[in-house]
Amino acid sequence: MIVAHPPPQIRAILRMHRYGTLILIFAEGKGTLKREETQMIEEFMRRAIALAMENVRSGAGGPFAAVIVKDGHVVADGVNRVTATNDPTAHAEVVAIREACRKLGDFQLAGCDLYTTCEPCPMCLGAIYWARPARVFYACVAADAAAVGFDDAFIYKELNRAHAERRVPMQQLLREESLTIFALWQQQGKKTLY
Amino acid sequence: MIVAHPPPQIRAILRMHRYGTLILIFAEGKGTLKREETQMIEEFMRRAIALAMENVRSGAGGPFAAVIVKDGHVVADGVNRVTATNDPTAHAEVVAIREACRKLGDFQLAGCDLYTTCEPCPMCLGAIYWARPARVFYACVAADAAAVGFDDAFIYKELNRAHAERRVPMQQLLREESLTIFALWQQQGKKTLY
Repeated sequence: MIVAHPPPQIRAILRMHRYGTLILIFAEGKGTLKREETQMIEEFMRRAIALAMENVRSGAGGPFAAVIVKDGHVVADGVNRVTATNDPTAHAEVVAIREACRKLGDFQLAGCDLYTTCEPCPMCLGAIYWARPARVFYACVAADAAAVGFDDAFIYKELNRAHAERRVPMQQLLREESLTIFALWQQQGKKTLY
Repeated sequence: MIVAHPPPQIRAILRMHRYGTLILIFAEGKGTLKREETQMIEEFMRRAIALAMENVRSGAGGPFAAVIVKDGHVVADGVNRVTATNDPTAHAEVVAIREACRKLGDFQLAGCDLYTTCEPCPMCLGAIYWARPARVFYACVAADAAAVGFDDAFIYKELNRAHAERRVPMQQLLREESLTIFALWQQQGKKTLY
């Protein structure tokens, strides 16, 4: 019997079979489950890697992709679309987070895992913290991205610099006037916290 | 004569007149220009403050707004739309950056100034660095936002923590396989750098 889209556990077994390492495990135990989970995690990361390869191959965008998974199923994926859509925020992780939230009808990714082909940049890491997924899996490290011209490390350094020393100058003004917004926010009855 | 939308310089003069401090300066000089620029900067920030007030008043979203200006003209603005659109990345700055880039047909904000009612969170600061505007103006500081429940400081701290110590656990895998994406990227002829 050939199943077009077998569940991940079956696919993991098929892959083991392909590589000549098929072991049928009938016993249930922590070790077995862990092995199954590792296989699933690798499978989802390979899916992200394949998406990124296709994004580069087609010339559509940068060499990055992300996949968001909930309860063993892919909720959404995203590839880098910065140049394709003239959107500097369209990094793979942000695209995937926005799409997953849209599909789930929620601004939080509770119980979701995010897979990304490369360690998130500060913008994406910020987006991850606001979306609050359960776990993040990444493949390449920031230094790998820097080696091909994507210098996230520069932004990480800038974040830790005093405002006056940053490359994009930041100037403060009208704080008192702007504080009235927060005063109104605190008085406001119909508000959704996030 | 009443002009519905006088240019910023005229509006600055009208405001000085209203406060009984109208001085007609015919001489050109650095000091004069500086004063005009300050007036303009304050005016754009007040526009952002008004947008944020309206966002809170209408119950549409969080107490934040941003305005992007180029050559003395507003290119785009944005208000916080996280809960309204189920998009955790829809902070005012990100919304404004995406809109400005869409309007300018560019993924860079060269020569633009970004005005935000509050010091940007790490996600927004990352987005700012990727969009590369000329300057950033902000009103409230991060501590003001934290005082009403928006704790960006927590994310700033997390960014500086080792991966294993972060509240969202981050795990690395399949680096070697993922590096093939960057290898393909470097071979790729038709690519746009960003």
